[in-house]
Amino acid sequence: MPANTVMEHSGVLLNAPTVYPMKRYEQFADEIATLIRQGVLGPGERIPSVRQASRHHGISPSTVFQAYYLLENRGLITARARSGYFVREHARRLLDEPRVTLQPTDPAEVEVSELVFSVLGSLQDDRTVPFGSAFPSPELFPLSRLSISMTRGLRALSPQQVVADMTTGHTDLCRQIALRYMLGGIQLPMEELVITNGAMEGLNLALQCVTEPGDLVAIESPAFYASLQVLERLKLRAVEIPVHPREGIDLEVLAERLETLPIKACWFMSHLQNPIGASLSKERKQVLYQLLKQHQVPMLEDDVYAELYFGSTPPVPVKAFDDEGLVIHCSSFSKCLAPGYRVGWVAGGRYAQAISRLKLMTTISPSVPAQAAIADYLQHGGYDRHLRKLRHALEAQQGSMLAAADRYFPANTRITRPAGGYFLWVEFPEQVDSLRLFNTALDHGVSLAPGPIFSATQQFRHCVRLSYGHPWTPNSERGMETLGRLLSLF
Amino acid sequence: MPANTVMEHSGVLLNAPTVYPMKRYEQFADEIATLIRQGVLGPGERIPSVRQASRHHGISPSTVFQAYYLLENRGLITARARSGYFVREHARRLLDEPRVTLQPTDPAEVEVSELVFSVLGSLQDDRTVPFGSAFPSPELFPLSRLSISMTRGLRALSPQQVVADMTTGHTDLCRQIALRYMLGGIQLPMEELVITNGAMEGLNLALQCVTEPGDLVAIESPAFYASLQVLERLKLRAVEIPVHPREGIDLEVLAERLETLPIKACWFMSHLQNPIGASLSKERKQVLYQLLKQHQVPMLEDDVYAELYFGSTPPVPVKAFDDEGLVIHCSSFSKCLAPGYRVGWVAGGRYAQAISRLKLMTTISPSVPAQAAIADYLQHGGYDRHLRKLRHALEAQQGSMLAAADRYFPANTRITRPAGGYFLWVEFPEQVDSLRLFNTALDHGVSLAPGPIFSATQQFRHCVRLSYGHPWTPNSERGMETLGRLLSLF
Repeated sequence: MPANTVMEHSGVLLNAPTVYPMKRYEQFADEIATLIRQGVLGPGERIPSVRQASRHHGISPSTVFQAYYLLENRGLITARARSGYFVREHARRLLDEPRVTLQPTDPAEVEVSELVFSVLGSLQDDRTVPFGSAFPSPELFPLSRLSISMTRGLRALSPQQVVADMTTGHTDLCRQIALRYMLGGIQLPMEELVITNGAMEGLNLALQCVTEPGDLVAIESPAFYASLQVLERLKLRAVEIPVHPREGIDLEVLAERLETLPIKACWFMSHLQNPIGASLSKERKQVLYQLLKQHQVPMLEDDVYAELYFGSTPPVPVKAFDDEGLVIHCSSFSKCLAPGYRVGWVAGGRYAQAISRLKLMTTISPSVPAQAAIADYLQHGGYDRHLRKLRHALEAQQGSMLAAADRYFPANTRITRPAGGYFLWVEFPEQVDSLRLFNTALDHGVSLAPGPIFSATQQFRHCVRLSYGHPWTPNSERGMETLGRLLSLF
Repeated sequence: MPANTVMEHSGVLLNAPTVYPMKRYEQFADEIATLIRQGVLGPGERIPSVRQASRHHGISPSTVFQAYYLLENRGLITARARSGYFVREHARRLLDEPRVTLQPTDPAEVEVSELVFSVLGSLQDDRTVPFGSAFPSPELFPLSRLSISMTRGLRALSPQQVVADMTTGHTDLCRQIALRYMLGGIQLPMEELVITNGAMEGLNLALQCVTEPGDLVAIESPAFYASLQVLERLKLRAVEIPVHPREGIDLEVLAERLETLPIKACWFMSHLQNPIGASLSKERKQVLYQLLKQHQVPMLEDDVYAELYFGSTPPVPVKAFDDEGLVIHCSSFSKCLAPGYRVGWVAGGRYAQAISRLKLMTTISPSVPAQAAIADYLQHGGYDRHLRKLRHALEAQQGSMLAAADRYFPANTRITRPAGGYFLWVEFPEQVDSLRLFNTALDHGVSLAPGPIFSATQQFRHCVRLSYGHPWTPNSERGMETLGRLLSLF
């Protein structure tokens, strides 16, 4: 471990963000949530009364009350006057989960950009129901509080820092990020951190540092379309590894491919994978890391949804097992705190210096005022409080969208139910053409992200990604109804 | 001309920035400044009295007073009590201007990055006299006023804009930039504008859009080292075109090279070229554009010093003559208003859409709050007033550095005297090794930029670039004295 870990910045700990260890009521709420998700407690079913639960679990009635209040916030149960608490209708799973339909393919040249741009270009009309959107609603973010932090951050910034922080990153921001890693159990040397224009720049720089044109890169399938665009731009070839909707990436296929092909890098989202929402278990993350280590293949870990887990247990990234600097962990504040500020970072492992230099040669630095604002917010803004509110909102919105899918979509539709984030992956009957659906839905004022933009080999033609990242309104309900109507025409 | 020019945004003109047409006293000051620069008025010489000038030029005494006050501010003349106004000692040119020493070379692979990084890395000690710095002193910028604009800009920004402006650029900022082009006589369709993370990102994206690895790119020699790094990174080969210290790029050599080599792009600074400070005349810019047009070769016009001209006449970029969309005009606010904010732009001509898409695939967008702050500042902050103050400060600092060079450097030193910006290019006697000078000077607490970092073929070994971008202090004077002492050891 290099000498200069955050531990040694002794002054830093005074400014540590407030940490919320998991409370008893949160733990209890998670237990009930698991029972609901597993179907042990069915929709419409009554859950144990406060008195019963208190006696049975040996916890105080007020703890049970707090837990039930939380579950209501999370959209899983509802209180009925004088009758008690009931599992909400839409908390059930009626629709099945998608199958893993991907057939392993040969390494492929990527040509998806044109399609992606035509889809993204269509999302700009703000009267459209934004199921195709890549960002959650900006209303879910503490933008006013961030403005206060901007004023404070700018006041604390010396003129010299405005220039000097371009090279090194804003010092307080780097410390706050390193601290959050530390609280998650990861001792990160400060030199490993490179502040970037969102995670997107970090991923781009990292991939350039570890590949040459023509190289093979293992990606997920379905994959985040932007990763496909980057491969296309850098003239890299994609080796698609199937992703199971719950278990995540297929490690057996990956092992076989690493064995037989000269793969130069992996680009994976081990947690709340976009678009399918799967997360690898901790054990499977460890297995994944051992594979990387065995083959000495670097991995870009795109972890932008790290903070958007439902429940109370933060995920552990693959980076946590990285004892050789092989994992390039990329994340940002764009999806959980400050969209448009364009502040992300890379924990670059053994590639950190190369990534930092490449950044200095291309964009030099993200905006220093934006970094200062976020640094101040992390210290004083109540980040963890905001995150809990955001997670509850997203979980409730997921429930609403699942319920609507159940009401309006064909019965043989298959749909994910991810444990976080704001995307559902929907697999329609084979005859549905999602590109046609995309176009007609847009004519009816509803956007969506069609399956083929998530594949280097144009698979998933009958699939779509739907976002529940916006507060649920009657308009959202009508949007789902419209989709259902259009689906019946296929 | 595409339909959607700024002219048609009729509402915009209400918010037009204050324009300062050149006043009579400014014009008169420029006339006197020209006489001083040409040596017609020598150092120590008395300039016409207010009464004489007023009578001779048919202008009021108060206009003459204003002009002389301005020339004092610009560091060109000084008032002596009861004696009148005199040309300052350091306004003379004692040292000759550098020769054009470059021999045209064969197209070259570029390998300069390591050297550049070792030089840049050495600049980070703030006790060092910053003659090697690439940025002017942040004290010269209106950072407090910008903070006010940040608060106002954020208040005016709707949550929806924070996300939407990532794709299109902040609307008001785009309008303000287009307006400044318009005031300079360039009708720019809004679709041509791409907001970037400083000019550096714009130049990187543009070069990627118009070249493939292995292609030939014409650059200046000496060249801005970052352009060499970009060529190296993109595996492009450099065709070096010599730059004359006053006349700018050698158009005859360029014409011959365009004729005989398959050059795919040019990357030039037609105005206040870094490091040599030369500017092409308007006529020569026209000739340059005709060459580009004849060969249908796109040109990246790096124009980051556009606003740092001395005197009162703004320069006209090559872009002004571009009737085919061949010129990709790149600039930013980093060197003239807001370092660290990382807001620049590209007027991309026929390549605008490709550049915009490439940006969406790599960094998505510069910080939206930083864009909003600058948009507000351009409307309400007094940009032109700030620029005039900045220009006067830089011109006076140039005078101080030239005078010190004259005092401390060997007599056969040659030095530029650019009409703007904040760099001098110094050609020492042949035996001086600027890399050794760089290292020993650094040991003595003085930084500089050694010649070889400005060449793809490691030329200019006896040259250095010195920055006068920081306010002149006794420390600066000692720095020059130190350099003089070290030079005498060669």
